[in-house]
Amino acid sequence: MSITTPAGFSAAATTAGIKASGKKDMALVVNNGPDYTAAGVFTRNRVVAAPVKLTRRAVADGQLRAVVYNSGNANACNGAQGDADAYHTAEQLAALLDVPVSEVAVCSTGLIGEPLPMPILLEGLAPLVDGLGSQPTDGTAAAEAIMTTDMVVKETVIHGEGWTIGGMGKGAGMMAPSLATMLVCLTTDASITPDMADAALRAATSVTFDTLDIDGSTSTNDTVVLLASGASGVMPSQEEFAQAVRAACDDLASQMQADAEGVTKRVSITVVGTSTDEQALAAARTVGRDNLFKCAMFGSDPNWGRVLAAVGMADADMDPEHISVYFNDQAVCLDSCGAPGARDVDLSGADIEVRIDLGTGGPGRATVKTTDLSHAYVEINSEYST
Amino acid sequence: MSITTPAGFSAAATTAGIKASGKKDMALVVNNGPDYTAAGVFTRNRVVAAPVKLTRRAVADGQLRAVVYNSGNANACNGAQGDADAYHTAEQLAALLDVPVSEVAVCSTGLIGEPLPMPILLEGLAPLVDGLGSQPTDGTAAAEAIMTTDMVVKETVIHGEGWTIGGMGKGAGMMAPSLATMLVCLTTDASITPDMADAALRAATSVTFDTLDIDGSTSTNDTVVLLASGASGVMPSQEEFAQAVRAACDDLASQMQADAEGVTKRVSITVVGTSTDEQALAAARTVGRDNLFKCAMFGSDPNWGRVLAAVGMADADMDPEHISVYFNDQAVCLDSCGAPGARDVDLSGADIEVRIDLGTGGPGRATVKTTDLSHAYVEINSEYST
Repeated sequence: MSITTPAGFSAAATTAGIKASGKKDMALVVNNGPDYTAAGVFTRNRVVAAPVKLTRRAVADGQLRAVVYNSGNANACNGAQGDADAYHTAEQLAALLDVPVSEVAVCSTGLIGEPLPMPILLEGLAPLVDGLGSQPTDGTAAAEAIMTTDMVVKETVIHGEGWTIGGMGKGAGMMAPSLATMLVCLTTDASITPDMADAALRAATSVTFDTLDIDGSTSTNDTVVLLASGASGVMPSQEEFAQAVRAACDDLASQMQADAEGVTKRVSITVVGTSTDEQALAAARTVGRDNLFKCAMFGSDPNWGRVLAAVGMADADMDPEHISVYFNDQAVCLDSCGAPGARDVDLSGADIEVRIDLGTGGPGRATVKTTDLSHAYVEINSEYST
Repeated sequence: MSITTPAGFSAAATTAGIKASGKKDMALVVNNGPDYTAAGVFTRNRVVAAPVKLTRRAVADGQLRAVVYNSGNANACNGAQGDADAYHTAEQLAALLDVPVSEVAVCSTGLIGEPLPMPILLEGLAPLVDGLGSQPTDGTAAAEAIMTTDMVVKETVIHGEGWTIGGMGKGAGMMAPSLATMLVCLTTDASITPDMADAALRAATSVTFDTLDIDGSTSTNDTVVLLASGASGVMPSQEEFAQAVRAACDDLASQMQADAEGVTKRVSITVVGTSTDEQALAAARTVGRDNLFKCAMFGSDPNWGRVLAAVGMADADMDPEHISVYFNDQAVCLDSCGAPGARDVDLSGADIEVRIDLGTGGPGRATVKTTDLSHAYVEINSEYST
């Protein structure tokens, strides 16, 4: 169950001392080949962290040898110093691994706007390289080291015909459309081209991480990297491969939703009956980000009026007099009016499914996964930097 | 300090029994002339309550005699029954006042999706008409009767040269760009035309209620009505009048911000250095709606990285490497990097001013008023309908 399950990968973790908690805070994933194929998908935020800029450049040619991670510091909003620090990290790791610096990626997560503690970070590189191993525990150690406010380790394995995908991810808050605040690393021993990797990764993230919207906030550091070693010698079809990448991303996204900051409810919002899938997605997002709706979910309160008030502001075609809403498959609003028994629907369980029909008869359809807005969310996020 | 301060107006309140709390829940404002000039501004939500539809039609000709209010029930999402109930309310009141039904407006606020309890509501009309008076206490009673989760009565008086504007408002949550979830009634004894009233009201609301954004949620019932009796006999210039209407709206908007659900901080966000005022407004709203930023404000946490992460997603021109942020006039981020002492800025006071320079040198500028995201907000909004 880890990034070291596919053949051709080794991983390691260490405690460099970046996190005040004394927990593991650096990880390394190395592709031992024979292929070094790679693809990446990044945040759409215009304020991007230094490691995102570096990794974007590194992966542009479809090749990566290694990815080094640190948690506890995002290295975002640190100007030229941040760029230099990310580069020096890659440079020193490349020397230790004897690989080109242009094939090393760097990912950081944590507080924005604090300079990286470079001496302790650089000192962490040698123990990482020395500690590299291909056991499941090595992959899991890396998955632990990238956690920030995550409560649980997030890993996945998807099996193909003679090849495998492994994955690890972190992300528990600041989750929004341009990926969650997340770092994800997928490894595979399938033999694929950079174009196959890129196409599969973009298709998968658009329907998994991109539709996970915990709080409408979008990180400066979001990075999903896919590394392919070709060590299985098997070349799957694009369709097989894309399906497996999607399954891996879907599994990690579900784990992130379940572990979202302060979550007490996992809420899935499906919108139908509008003109296009894009409009349905916009409407589902609008509801999923509405704080009044999210508070009602926290209170297990079937206050469907808030769904109508929220969706009425969405940029989607709708018939305002013929909107219907279902909570856990029970009609609570039909033709924009309350349905019998609507106030008695039981929302006490941890999973709530909301379905909204915008009433135009159009084919548009989309689902967004979100959570409730709880006391714990406020607690966690009011004391993060202090 | 009330809507009965300007000459030519009377008001009343009663307890019909719509609110379970047994508090006042109906109010009436009557314009006794000699003019019956009126203007209205309404929610931009596409899901609109029945009373909004009725009042939009009633005010379209620039004339209103009376506005009847109820709290405790929004009469939204009640279909044809809701429309009929709003009309019957206006019809019966018109008969009691002996005025045309087309000159009666209806405003409702409260829970969405519950049919109006018509028998008790209609029984409340006669006591309202019988209770009409022009004392300050009559206006204040009306202002009390329109409250929902409001903690304090919201009234204002602005004096012109020989004429006056009075106002009352309610609104404490579900506040967003298309006005807050608010009902506002402004009265004036100035002698003005419907066009003057309309122009002044639109100009005033666009820079006051429209820039008050508590939680990004927009009500189905937002209505601001301006009634002008002409009883002073004084006709101010458009500029004088518009300025006074703006001052009245600004005062009520500030009272709403201060009384917002669960507020512990009043946060003002000003964006400069982008191409247009519209872009600056979009950027200020994006930050003002960001839950991570709002939680940091609740925690008095000068976590400026969240400002950059939020504003980086805004639909506004910016130079991502040259954004600056100031908390209470102290630089916390310069050229997208942390400023010295940024983590030590004291945000423990109840008022926090945030200024963001997007670094393009453009002339765009806008301010949005919002609040923090507190435990109390979650508490209030998780148990509203149950």
